[in-house]
Amino acid sequence: MSLLHPQLAAFAAVLDEGSFEGAARRLSLTPSAISQRVRALEDRLGQVLVRRGSPCQATAAGRQLLRNVQQMRLLEAEALQDVARAPGGPRAIAIAVNADSLATWFLPALAALHAGHGLLFDVRVEDQDHSARLLRDGTVLGAVTADARPVQGCTVRRLGTMRYLPAASPGFVARHFPAGPDAASLGRAPLLVFNRKDALQERFIRRITRARLAPPRHYLPSPAAFLEAMALGMGWGMAPESMLRGPMARGELRAIGAGRLDVPLYWQHWSIRSAALAQLTAALRAAAAQGGLRAARAQS
Amino acid sequence: MSLLHPQLAAFAAVLDEGSFEGAARRLSLTPSAISQRVRALEDRLGQVLVRRGSPCQATAAGRQLLRNVQQMRLLEAEALQDVARAPGGPRAIAIAVNADSLATWFLPALAALHAGHGLLFDVRVEDQDHSARLLRDGTVLGAVTADARPVQGCTVRRLGTMRYLPAASPGFVARHFPAGPDAASLGRAPLLVFNRKDALQERFIRRITRARLAPPRHYLPSPAAFLEAMALGMGWGMAPESMLRGPMARGELRAIGAGRLDVPLYWQHWSIRSAALAQLTAALRAAAAQGGLRAARAQS
Repeated sequence: MSLLHPQLAAFAAVLDEGSFEGAARRLSLTPSAISQRVRALEDRLGQVLVRRGSPCQATAAGRQLLRNVQQMRLLEAEALQDVARAPGGPRAIAIAVNADSLATWFLPALAALHAGHGLLFDVRVEDQDHSARLLRDGTVLGAVTADARPVQGCTVRRLGTMRYLPAASPGFVARHFPAGPDAASLGRAPLLVFNRKDALQERFIRRITRARLAPPRHYLPSPAAFLEAMALGMGWGMAPESMLRGPMARGELRAIGAGRLDVPLYWQHWSIRSAALAQLTAALRAAAAQGGLRAARAQS
Repeated sequence: MSLLHPQLAAFAAVLDEGSFEGAARRLSLTPSAISQRVRALEDRLGQVLVRRGSPCQATAAGRQLLRNVQQMRLLEAEALQDVARAPGGPRAIAIAVNADSLATWFLPALAALHAGHGLLFDVRVEDQDHSARLLRDGTVLGAVTADARPVQGCTVRRLGTMRYLPAASPGFVARHFPAGPDAASLGRAPLLVFNRKDALQERFIRRITRARLAPPRHYLPSPAAFLEAMALGMGWGMAPESMLRGPMARGELRAIGAGRLDVPLYWQHWSIRSAALAQLTAALRAAAAQGGLRAARAQS
């Protein structure tokens, strides 16, 4: 049962699932029924809402509509919960999160809300530029991000600070940094970089030298693989202190020098009144505090 | 007619023919036009590419460029940018890999090639649809994928089979599957799904029941987070046997019933002659065999 107009429900399901077939499965309809509803909605609004493809994606007009629909669905889910447990289960809450948060402190918050309230989550792993877009177009309800600038219509809350340390395998340190990191060694030692937007390693280098270095580099966009590559001696990199603790205690990795970088993290979410959102915000703040983020400063 | 940039076409023709005069003949230009184009290319890249002589030969930088000429036919602009970005230094080899391979057997191959030959890697984590596009447009040189259909211009090699088991936390199994998985329990128990393209859970369900089930579901697109969410009791899911071994031995996870799914994995790469590519292919096959992929069948 849904309080949404069937055309809106079909439209939203196509974008959720990425295909007309997926939407049909979810709503227990045929793909052709889904297609008719979406087309009828497009006729009514005089706009193409869904770019058919693999996956199907929202057009600009569709994104605008989706944002409204997502808010309606959240309120609907709560309204239904108040009346009765929604048949077919409650709806998944879409959230974006940066990869290092997901790899460290983030999940216990979701697990607690799932256990306590049966909430479901649709998690997207995105860098901050992309998560701002997802917030803007209503694909996600909130995002954990290093970006303090509020997206229009959103509230920003500081969660705490993630500390990064430069580290490598003991053999790598002995070979490349016998006298610690300096301009010469940092210019030669292979570097691990998460992706094109990861500037942490370069920020660390600039603290040590003003020379413009171009060390050889690998790109490895997975937190777990990043640490594994460090342990395998492929390069040095900046990794979250909380992820380094175990490998350092086991002697698989060690810090390079005494440097570190602190990255503040934020929870951006839509400014709407919703019990689920309030629970999520509280759970994320608690998990951030317990899971290794350093305390937010007084300004938060 | 060549799709190469005229400067690249002139450069390649000089090396093919061994002289500026021969290149001029082949391209129906004057030797001085050929010479201007080669010099303009060298200026753009900041490298001497051709050692003038009888015959003309490629310098080290020129050999590197020549090796990639086939890719540049499709991607000349990006390829030129790549070469220009890495003056002198070795170029990173761009590869796409599916997330579960990166989380299990993949990295030791790259670490061995880095240690032995100083190769650098630009790794992209992509599902198979996206990696086919990256292969087609030349962004990556090769891809580990579950897709056996060769991309045009590519060679496909079977690496082995990744086995997936359905698993959950012991508490979750006791609560949702006291009598094993059946249509009733599978219809109610919360499900973990990697992303919209992850059909493994549904394939497993279809083996047990023909009923069309719509269980509540989370989406969690990170292999490590997927296992953590299972251990935290958020749902059951299909995970690689090799990732489950540790958590199962520690009692954090257990299998649901005796079912399993075997997913064949392939290495698709450009059909070009390249020493680095040959080394990479050999290293990946070895790592796949050692790292838990089941042996490829005779047809591979």
